[in-house]
Amino acid sequence: MTEPLFERLALIGIGLIGSSIALNARAHGLARHIAIATRRPETLKRAEELGLGDSYHLEAAEAVRDADLVILCIPVGSCGAVTKEIAAALKPGAIVSDVGSVKGAVVAQMQPHLPETVHFVPAHPIAGTEQSGPDAGFLELFRNRWCILTPSETTDVQAVERLRRFWEASGSNVEVMTTEHHDLVLAIVSHVPHLIAYNIVGTAADLETVTQSEVVKFSASGFRDFTRIAASDPTMWRDIFLTNRDAVLEMLARFSEDLASLQRAIRWGDGDALFDLFTRTRAIRRGIVEAGQDTARADFGRSAAGEGKTEAAPAIATVAPDR
Amino acid sequence: MTEPLFERLALIGIGLIGSSIALNARAHGLARHIAIATRRPETLKRAEELGLGDSYHLEAAEAVRDADLVILCIPVGSCGAVTKEIAAALKPGAIVSDVGSVKGAVVAQMQPHLPETVHFVPAHPIAGTEQSGPDAGFLELFRNRWCILTPSETTDVQAVERLRRFWEASGSNVEVMTTEHHDLVLAIVSHVPHLIAYNIVGTAADLETVTQSEVVKFSASGFRDFTRIAASDPTMWRDIFLTNRDAVLEMLARFSEDLASLQRAIRWGDGDALFDLFTRTRAIRRGIVEAGQDTARADFGRSAAGEGKTEAAPAIATVAPDR
Repeated sequence: MTEPLFERLALIGIGLIGSSIALNARAHGLARHIAIATRRPETLKRAEELGLGDSYHLEAAEAVRDADLVILCIPVGSCGAVTKEIAAALKPGAIVSDVGSVKGAVVAQMQPHLPETVHFVPAHPIAGTEQSGPDAGFLELFRNRWCILTPSETTDVQAVERLRRFWEASGSNVEVMTTEHHDLVLAIVSHVPHLIAYNIVGTAADLETVTQSEVVKFSASGFRDFTRIAASDPTMWRDIFLTNRDAVLEMLARFSEDLASLQRAIRWGDGDALFDLFTRTRAIRRGIVEAGQDTARADFGRSAAGEGKTEAAPAIATVAPDR
Repeated sequence: MTEPLFERLALIGIGLIGSSIALNARAHGLARHIAIATRRPETLKRAEELGLGDSYHLEAAEAVRDADLVILCIPVGSCGAVTKEIAAALKPGAIVSDVGSVKGAVVAQMQPHLPETVHFVPAHPIAGTEQSGPDAGFLELFRNRWCILTPSETTDVQAVERLRRFWEASGSNVEVMTTEHHDLVLAIVSHVPHLIAYNIVGTAADLETVTQSEVVKFSASGFRDFTRIAASDPTMWRDIFLTNRDAVLEMLARFSEDLASLQRAIRWGDGDALFDLFTRTRAIRRGIVEAGQDTARADFGRSAAGEGKTEAAPAIATVAPDR
């Protein structure tokens, strides 16, 4: 076995993401010692039963002592308080990271508490399922998924490279960008799509003219895919919209503007405007299929439908941290 | 073999839907003679090579002569002209039907040309793939899919029942409703979801701050499902929005109103409003899973991702008639 990448890895929070990181660190020999911290005794006990780490701590500050990599795997809203708690115990030269879906707000919360002697490299593994807790983790969660790192301009390049190697060893493709750019990208590829899905499902639920059972019955006509997205964790998504407010509002304004223009085209019977857009959007779909992010298979799940068999759900990658 | 339901079935148009109907009529012995008409000689030749019918006609009026069931399997926009063409050749007592995604506009186009001696029972099989042409048809297309019939109040009840038996024998679940109600239901479960998907894919394509390759790369975060919907046939969808204008505009206005209110909640940090909606939408998702319209499986297609394996696409049922 080669020398591990890190001597001591501290995971603060051991939900879906934390436990999946632990499994990867173990399987690929990425850390000599895995220290796990979580505030809830039952969760900590469960992590120990599962053998996810080498030491278990109710106090985050204890877990991070002597650690050379510390990853906060907790909700975005808790990152500031926890950073304050662990700051004094951090080893000089340690890398401190997180897994939040929003980066600007996390940096704003964590940065002020961090000593100058540590390397802060925020991260966002774009991976997740709707499951949570230490039992939910699995080794393949990050495989072929993107992990975005958002170091600042002054962050030590070697620290960024070490964290990149850690995520690559866990199966991720790593991309580096600024926090601002990350938040814009995620707003359009993830946050606004989720908001729209939540919104139309709500609109449908409120109709007086069409019953809810009709909506359910005929959902396969397109609506169904929106409900799948709109079943994501409410607490996590509330926090995402509140913490990535500016980027979401910016993208949402553009979306609404474009929609108003489509609405006008429909009202005035401007078929060419509709046709042009509908043709243009096909090219993006082709790009996604060509990039291997989806398949062009056209059986539409029919082979599995209506026979009680399972059907592969599309990948809606979300970060559902320790809750 | 039992007596067939119909002596002579005439299919006008032999694309995905028409050829799938032909295959079902043959396999389940629903008609003694299947007459196929299409305007394009190559398509007719191909239908004959595939052995889809018993007689083949370039003139629709020839195919419908003596038929006791006539189904127009052509784009919504062509139904008026074709009905005018076949009207004089229709046998008294024949059932005339169609397969269009919009019913109000189809009725308005067809009704004025139809003699009073025939029974007009509009139909909408909610089934389809993105494929088209006579080769695209398959026997299972309608299995466990809904087919909505929209007869008027004065339509002969027995004619409606015969058409219901025809669709049920092809594997469909049949529901009867008014044309107006059909168009409202489809507007919310299908047409507006498609419009929104087209719209956000367009918004993403126009961004200056996020590149198209980034959108493609990180699409698995939610956006991807929208692109799948937004890759549907542009001509067909243009026609749907133009012909179901009133219902689409009505639903779209509600959607935009609701979205504006969500936008306000984000701007003013009203987390409770967001949380309440996000919790409410989960109930609808549960209803869909319980109704057997989807599964709760949570592997998000990961087992297939990134390994060149295929992944089951979700069922987006659309009618893609003869084009």
